[in-house]
Amino acid sequence: MKVLVIGASGTIGRAVAAELAPRHTIVTAGRSSGDFRVDVTDLASVQRLFRETGPLDAVIATTGSLHFGPLGEFTPEQYAIGLNDKLMGQVNLVIAGQHVLNDGGSFTLTSGIVSDEPIRYGSSASMVNAAIEGFVRGAAIELPRGLRINVVSPNVLVESLDGYGPYFRGFEAVPAARVALAYSKSVEGLQTGRVYPVH
Amino acid sequence: MKVLVIGASGTIGRAVAAELAPRHTIVTAGRSSGDFRVDVTDLASVQRLFRETGPLDAVIATTGSLHFGPLGEFTPEQYAIGLNDKLMGQVNLVIAGQHVLNDGGSFTLTSGIVSDEPIRYGSSASMVNAAIEGFVRGAAIELPRGLRINVVSPNVLVESLDGYGPYFRGFEAVPAARVALAYSKSVEGLQTGRVYPVH
Repeated sequence: MKVLVIGASGTIGRAVAAELAPRHTIVTAGRSSGDFRVDVTDLASVQRLFRETGPLDAVIATTGSLHFGPLGEFTPEQYAIGLNDKLMGQVNLVIAGQHVLNDGGSFTLTSGIVSDEPIRYGSSASMVNAAIEGFVRGAAIELPRGLRINVVSPNVLVESLDGYGPYFRGFEAVPAARVALAYSKSVEGLQTGRVYPVH
Repeated sequence: MKVLVIGASGTIGRAVAAELAPRHTIVTAGRSSGDFRVDVTDLASVQRLFRETGPLDAVIATTGSLHFGPLGEFTPEQYAIGLNDKLMGQVNLVIAGQHVLNDGGSFTLTSGIVSDEPIRYGSSASMVNAAIEGFVRGAAIELPRGLRINVVSPNVLVESLDGYGPYFRGFEAVPAARVALAYSKSVEGLQTGRVYPVH
């Protein structure tokens, strides 16, 4: 299969590329690195990306940022960061990609454990990650031509504990290589509309 | 208790007001009807609303619109309708209300069954309703002064089958009066961070 990984320079993206590379052709895209440049928050940029990559069998998104902060100080503009970037950035890949992926192709998006297990300062993360999972459930039943869509919900990464550890006390961190298996299950399996937790 | 119902002119809002009125003081707000005018998509309008109502013990939102349409034709702007209105409209009530509700007060928001059970044309509904539920889980653990927040997820209403029935074939429609009980459970109970499905 020809697999596009967006956000391949990140910790999860690198692990996913390493997991899939022995069996598939991997192409990568990112805002500032990878085989192709893309700003996923801009639908026109995503459409241009798919023209550049040519036919694809799988699209994996391991990208997306959102704001963390105290609920008591959160502003609508800070919620909009995650809605525009992590949520709609990934949705834009589906809006554009559904028309160009090969029959039977798949989308695999990324949410996060905070959808289910809230953390301090995480009201936007819980909102955005849950929204991605809801979108995947909704989109799965409408995709044409056997296209599939799933979402991986990773726990905090062992590799990210230096930065995020204080917000995830008591969470059982997972190595990125283990998270990568869930992307393989989505791309190389046949299920659709699933949330794959790696908790 | 003094309870503010936003969207009280809607089918659910009227049922909620009827359920709670024998035991509580109900004040209502809406875009074009009710005791107070508010545009919930505008945080400044929401802040003004709370200055006008004075102290409150509970805020109930039964308001919010979103776009329905085929996944293959959905645009980012159409997803933004639900994100700005049904999601952020209700979130704005929490952003502003957390600073003014009486100690131990509650927010009760509204999502919908499509969060869990997708329907044709419902990718935005699944996204937005799931986002509201995620936000509620995240906000619940950070609210100060014993403030609580829950969300009611109604099935399609018996009263709405004329308009929505074709999209909800096989769903077991519920009367608005039964949905109203879940709002009572949220307002008059002590739990927080809960999704109350009325499916």
